[in-house]
Amino acid sequence: MTFTAAQIAAMINGGVEGDENTSVGNFGKIEEAKEGQLSFLANPKYEEYLYETKASIIIINDNLELKKPVAATLIRVKDAYSAFAVLLSKYQELMQQQLKGIQEPSYIAKTATCGADIFVGAFAYIGENVSIGNGSKIHPGAYIGNNVTIGNNTTINPGVKILYNCQVGNNVTIHAGTVIGSDGFGFAPQADGTFSKVPQIGNVVIEDNVEIGANATIDRATIGSTIIHAGAKLDNLIQIAHNVEIGSSTVVAAQAGISGSTKVGKGVMIGGQVGIVGHLHIGDGAKINAQSGVSKDIDPGKAVTGSPAYDYTSALRSQALNRKLPDLEKRLKEMEQELNQLKKSHEI
Amino acid sequence: MTFTAAQIAAMINGGVEGDENTSVGNFGKIEEAKEGQLSFLANPKYEEYLYETKASIIIINDNLELKKPVAATLIRVKDAYSAFAVLLSKYQELMQQQLKGIQEPSYIAKTATCGADIFVGAFAYIGENVSIGNGSKIHPGAYIGNNVTIGNNTTINPGVKILYNCQVGNNVTIHAGTVIGSDGFGFAPQADGTFSKVPQIGNVVIEDNVEIGANATIDRATIGSTIIHAGAKLDNLIQIAHNVEIGSSTVVAAQAGISGSTKVGKGVMIGGQVGIVGHLHIGDGAKINAQSGVSKDIDPGKAVTGSPAYDYTSALRSQALNRKLPDLEKRLKEMEQELNQLKKSHEI
Amino acid sequence: MTFTAAQIAAMINGGVEGDENTSVGNFGKIEEAKEGQLSFLANPKYEEYLYETKASIIIINDNLELKKPVAATLIRVKDAYSAFAVLLSKYQELMQQQLKGIQEPSYIAKTATCGADIFVGAFAYIGENVSIGNGSKIHPGAYIGNNVTIGNNTTINPGVKILYNCQVGNNVTIHAGTVIGSDGFGFAPQADGTFSKVPQIGNVVIEDNVEIGANATIDRATIGSTIIHAGAKLDNLIQIAHNVEIGSSTVVAAQAGISGSTKVGKGVMIGGQVGIVGHLHIGDGAKINAQSGVSKDIDPGKAVTGSPAYDYTSALRSQALNRKLPDLEKRLKEMEQELNQLKKSHEI
Repeated sequence: MTFTAAQIAAMINGGVEGDENTSVGNFGKIEEAKEGQLSFLANPKYEEYLYETKASIIIINDNLELKKPVAATLIRVKDAYSAFAVLLSKYQELMQQQLKGIQEPSYIAKTATCGADIFVGAFAYIGENVSIGNGSKIHPGAYIGNNVTIGNNTTINPGVKILYNCQVGNNVTIHAGTVIGSDGFGFAPQADGTFSKVPQIGNVVIEDNVEIGANATIDRATIGSTIIHAGAKLDNLIQIAHNVEIGSSTVVAAQAGISGSTKVGKGVMIGGQVGIVGHLHIGDGAKINAQSGVSKDIDPGKAVTGSPAYDYTSALRSQALNRKLPDLEKRLKEMEQELNQLKKSHEI
Repeated sequence: MTFTAAQIAAMINGGVEGDENTSVGNFGKIEEAKEGQLSFLANPKYEEYLYETKASIIIINDNLELKKPVAATLIRVKDAYSAFAVLLSKYQELMQQQLKGIQEPSYIAKTATCGADIFVGAFAYIGENVSIGNGSKIHPGAYIGNNVTIGNNTTINPGVKILYNCQVGNNVTIHAGTVIGSDGFGFAPQADGTFSKVPQIGNVVIEDNVEIGANATIDRATIGSTIIHAGAKLDNLIQIAHNVEIGSSTVVAAQAGISGSTKVGKGVMIGGQVGIVGHLHIGDGAKINAQSGVSKDIDPGKAVTGSPAYDYTSALRSQALNRKLPDLEKRLKEMEQELNQLKKSHEI
Repeated sequence: MTFTAAQIAAMINGGVEGDENTSVGNFGKIEEAKEGQLSFLANPKYEEYLYETKASIIIINDNLELKKPVAATLIRVKDAYSAFAVLLSKYQELMQQQLKGIQEPSYIAKTATCGADIFVGAFAYIGENVSIGNGSKIHPGAYIGNNVTIGNNTTINPGVKILYNCQVGNNVTIHAGTVIGSDGFGFAPQADGTFSKVPQIGNVVIEDNVEIGANATIDRATIGSTIIHAGAKLDNLIQIAHNVEIGSSTVVAAQAGISGSTKVGKGVMIGGQVGIVGHLHIGDGAKINAQSGVSKDIDPGKAVTGSPAYDYTSALRSQALNRKLPDLEKRLKEMEQELNQLKKSHEI
C-alpha cells in the first residue's frame, strides 16, 4: 500500500514541492529514514537532517526557508507535526485489528451493564453495578471496581486498576498499570506518636478526552472528588493526591507529583519531576519548569523554576550567578585586602 | 439515615454550640458543603469558609476563637481532624459490604493455609506454603508468592505483588499495584565494563499496622531483611531499596526514594520526592523537607532541606540570599568601582 | 548442607587465613551475622564490623590490611563483592525450585510459539503471534501483547505488561509490575488550546542481558524504536520516554527519568531521581549525580551534578559557597560601611 505526494498533500491540505508522483509506503524519523519512507521536520534543531535524509517525502512547515537543495519531495503545511500526526492516525486505524467481544476467562458481575461493541480481555475484572459505554475496551487483567462508570470509546489498558465509585468519561485512554482511586494519604497524628487512618470516602472523576500514562497513581478524595478535567494529558508515573483538581487541557509530564487539595488551572504546563505542595492554587496557563518544587500559589500565565520555585527569569539569573560564586568570593576577598591596605595607608 | 448534633457530639465527646437538633446525613468539605452535610475545620488556612459554608454542622477545635457569627451548629472537640476521621470510619463501616469467600477463577496452591473469614478475589494467585491469617482480604489479581506469610485483618489490594518468602503482619494495608520483594539493585562491576548480578536471597518484613500506597516498590534484602517497622505509613510510588529499615510510625510521602542499607529511625517525617543515599542513619524524629537530597547522616530531631540537604533554618537563609544574588553582585561591582576611584584619588 | 573454608576458597579462587576446616551453612551481613554464617567485607565503611562480627568465615579483599586480630577465618580474593555474589548464585541455584510447565488458567493464543522448558504462570496472557524462546519464564499475571518476541532464558516477573510489537532479548530480567511499550507522550497543540494525540506506532527493543526493576515504564517510539542496549541495568520506577536509547552496560538508578529522543551512551552512570530533558546526547562513561537535572549534552567521561547540572567539581564549590552566602553578605555589608567611612574621611 503506497501513496503519492499528491495524494498525501490532499489529505493534509498541503502544497507539494518536487515530484508529485513520488510514492511512500511507510514512516521514518528524518535522521534514519530510508527511500520509500515519509518523514517530517518540525523541530528546527533537526534541520540539518533535511539536507541529508534518504526519506522520499518530507512534510515541513510553511514558513521554513531552505538553506540548501533538498533531494526529497516536500509537502508544506501550516503545522508539520500536527499534519504528520493526522497521517499516523489514519495509518494506525488501517493497521489496528478491531478488538471486540469477551475473552475467557474474565469476570463480569451480573449487575454490570455493558454497551455495544465493547472488548473485555481475559482476566479482566468488572465489579458490581459497573457501567461501561459503547465501544470501550477493557484490556486483559484490568480491574474495574464496584459502581465504577466508564463512558464511550474509552480504552483501559492491561493491568489498570480503577477502584470503587470512580467515574471515567468518554474517549479517555488510561495506560497500563495505572491505579485510579487508591486511598488518599490521610492520617491523624495521635498523642502517643502513632497515626490513625482518616477514611477516604470520596472518589476520582476523570472527564472526557483525558489521557493518563502508565503506572501513574490518582488518589480518591477524602470526601468529594479528585477531578481531572476534560482534555488534560498526564504522563507516566505521576502522582495526584486526594482532592486535587487538574484543569482542562493541562499537561503534566512524567514523575511529577501534586499534593492534596491543590487546584491546578487550565492549560498549565507542568514539567517532569515537578513537586507541588498541598492546598495551592496554580493559575491558568502557568508554566512550571522540570524538577521545580512549588510551595506557593502561582499567578495565571506565570513561569517558574527552581526548588523552591520562583519567577523563571529571575531564577535563571540567580542560577547563573550561583555558578560564578567562586569568582564572586575571590573578588570579595581581593577587595577586603585592598580596603585594608587603603585603610593602613590612610592611617599613616 | 440522619444524626443530630447531640448524637454526633456524644460519639466524639464534643460540646455543641447552637441547635442540638440540627441533623445531617452526609459529609462535605467546608468550602463546598451543602445544607444537611457535616463538615470540619482543622487547617486555619480555611477559616474564612467557616463563616460562609452551607454545612449544617461543623466540627472545630476547642481553642478556635470565632471572628464572626457562624450560621451552622458547631461541635467543639480537642482535635477536629481526628474526630472527623472517627465519624468517617463509622460511616465507612456501615457502608462497606463485607467481602468474604473465594471468587472464581482464582489460584490457591494446595499447600497454602487460609484463616477464617478471608476474601480471595478472582484472578488472585496464592503460591505454595503461603499462610494467610483470619479476616484478611486478597483482592482480585493480587499475587502472593511461595512461602509468604500474611497476618490477620490485612488488606492486599488489586494487583499487588508480594514475592516469595516475604512476611506481612496484622492490620496492614497495601494499595493497588505495589510490589513487595522485587530484587535489590545489586550488580558487581566486571573488568570488561559489564555488570554481574548479585543474587538477592533475603526478604521483606512488614510489621503490624503499616500502610503502603499504590504502585510503590520495596526491594528484598541481598541477605537478611528489608524491614518496615510497625505503624509506618508510606505513600504512592515510593522506592525502598534492599536492606533498608524504616522505623515505627515514620511517614514517607509520595515519590520519595531511599537507597540501599539506609536505616531510618522512628517518627521520622520524609517529604515527597526526597532522595536518601545508601548506608546512612536518619535519627528518630528527624524531618526531611520535600525534594531534599540527603547525603549524610541526620541527627535525631533535626530538620533539613535542600539538595544536598542541610540544616533547615540555615538552608532557608541561603535560599533567600540566593534569590538576591543579582543584587549582591551589583553591590560588589559598585564597591569595586568606588574602591578604584578612591585608590586613584589617593595616588594623586 | 555445610561447606568448609577450604571448599569455599576453592570455588572462588581465594586464599584462606585461619582454620581451613571452619564450616558454614548460611549467609549473613557482617554487622548481624551469627556463628556458622559466611559473610564478606567490601565497603571500607564497614571495616569496624570485621573485628566484632560473629560470622565464622569472612571474604575480604586481597589488599585489606588488618588493624586488629580477627576471630573469624578469612578468605582473601581480588574482589570480595564479586566472589560473594558468585557464592550467592550457586546457593540460589541449589535452592530454586525449577519452574516449568503451564499453570491453569492461563491464556495462550493459538498463533503463539513457545520454546522448550518454558514456564507460564496462572493468569498470564500471551497474545497472537507471540514468540517465546527456550527456558523463559512468564510469571503469573504477566501480559505479553500481540507480535511480541522474547528470547531464551528470559524472566518476565508477575504482572509485567509488554505491549504489542515489542522485542525482548535473551537472559533479560524484567521485575514485577513494569510496563514496556506504553504510548509515548506525544500531543500536538491545537489552535483552540487543546491537544491532539500523535499516534505512537513504533516499539521498544530490549537487548540481551538487560535487567529492569519493578514498576518502571518504557514508552514505545513514535516511529522507529526505543532501545535498551545489551547489559544495561535499570532500577525501579524509572521512566524511559519514546525514542530514547540507553547504551550498553549503562546503569540507571531508581526513579530517574529520561525524556524523549535522548541518546545515552555506553557505561554511563545515572543516579537516582535524575531527570534528563529530551533530544540530548549523553557521552559514553558520563556520570550523573543523584537528583541532577540535565538540560545540555554531556561529553564522554564527564561528571555532573546539580539542577541544572554542570561540572561536578565546580558545582560542589558553588554548593559549598552557597551555604556560606549569609557570611558573604555580612562581609559585603561590612565593606560597604568601611568604604563609606573611608570616603567620608577622605573628603574631609
